[in-house]
Amino acid sequence: MESSVVGRRTDGVRAAVVAATRDELVEHGYATLSPERVARRAGIDVSTVHERWSDADALVDVLLDEFAQHELVLLSTGSLETDLRALSAGIAALYGVPQRREVIGELVHAAAGSPRAAETLRRFWARRLANAAAPVRRAIAAGELPPDTDPLEVIRALGAPFYYRMFITLEPLDDALADRAAAAAIAAARAGVFATSRSPTG
Amino acid sequence: MESSVVGRRTDGVRAAVVAATRDELVEHGYATLSPERVARRAGIDVSTVHERWSDADALVDVLLDEFAQHELVLLSTGSLETDLRALSAGIAALYGVPQRREVIGELVHAAAGSPRAAETLRRFWARRLANAAAPVRRAIAAGELPPDTDPLEVIRALGAPFYYRMFITLEPLDDALADRAAAAAIAAARAGVFATSRSPTG
Repeated sequence: MESSVVGRRTDGVRAAVVAATRDELVEHGYATLSPERVARRAGIDVSTVHERWSDADALVDVLLDEFAQHELVLLSTGSLETDLRALSAGIAALYGVPQRREVIGELVHAAAGSPRAAETLRRFWARRLANAAAPVRRAIAAGELPPDTDPLEVIRALGAPFYYRMFITLEPLDDALADRAAAAAIAAARAGVFATSRSPTG
Repeated sequence: MESSVVGRRTDGVRAAVVAATRDELVEHGYATLSPERVARRAGIDVSTVHERWSDADALVDVLLDEFAQHELVLLSTGSLETDLRALSAGIAALYGVPQRREVIGELVHAAAGSPRAAETLRRFWARRLANAAAPVRRAIAAGELPPDTDPLEVIRALGAPFYYRMFITLEPLDDALADRAAAAAIAAARAGVFATSRSPTG
């Protein structure tokens, strides 16, 4: 749908739609999310919104795209530790803002009841994991990690403790977590735990 | 509420209430869970149920007690690896049964909207983590892990990847996960990542 012809005006529409989608999700949830409600909230003509985002999942998609683009701290310092600590600190900072936590929480909950929301969320994580794995792929190429390390597993290990505390055990994200999450993922990766060749009983 | 006087008959009531609570949660969710509905489903007099479980959260409590008692595989082989692999395999087996996954999923989702459900769930995880940490405490006492290792952090690290996949990234629990989750937690613990004295920048 993006085109260089529509230019600045359309970007403004997109930004307004993203903000209104986020606010609708936080205040009213996924169940009632629609192009009509988002258009009303954003003060944009319904047909303009509808033309580009035909349903709730298209709106969630564009909101998650914003999350994925702006909130992932991806360094390339050449040091796996520095890069993964930055990524981990970035996740902590992202969810230090309650509204962002609520957006992801609402989508996680929506996914339990809506196969389309689940699919949208699954695509988001797949993109996000693949992007975040860049420093791990570099470390493997540089011989810093075992050659058959699964980069995505390292990133899953880094991220899991945040989501586990936020949405499962309902514990606070303490200050030490970002450091521990990165260090634990790196220690396990160095020990060969995420090697694809690892024997299940080895 | 438990008493030796009530004996076997009461245990039968408890078992029926646990089963009916589980089925109500899976089929209708937390929002409508009540002693009345559970009594009707279990074919038990409402006043009998109401006397011991006055509301939805008391019912959830007794259901989670059952989970905690029956589903945690706690060995004491003297080997941290063996004990934590058994624990990890037990979590995989627990959630290999879709209905149990749905019960926890429903409660996790209920907790987002109900402070009482959140509190009930928080108590459940606290008990469960404390119980599961026994092999880690033994390994610390035996000098197998750094003396200031936080046992609960080791168990959180072991459990997080399961819940992350089930409820956040919506990925399958593959066969290798139980092994990897235990091995990653142990590798990080051995590297001192879960030491309480660990400096956030160290």
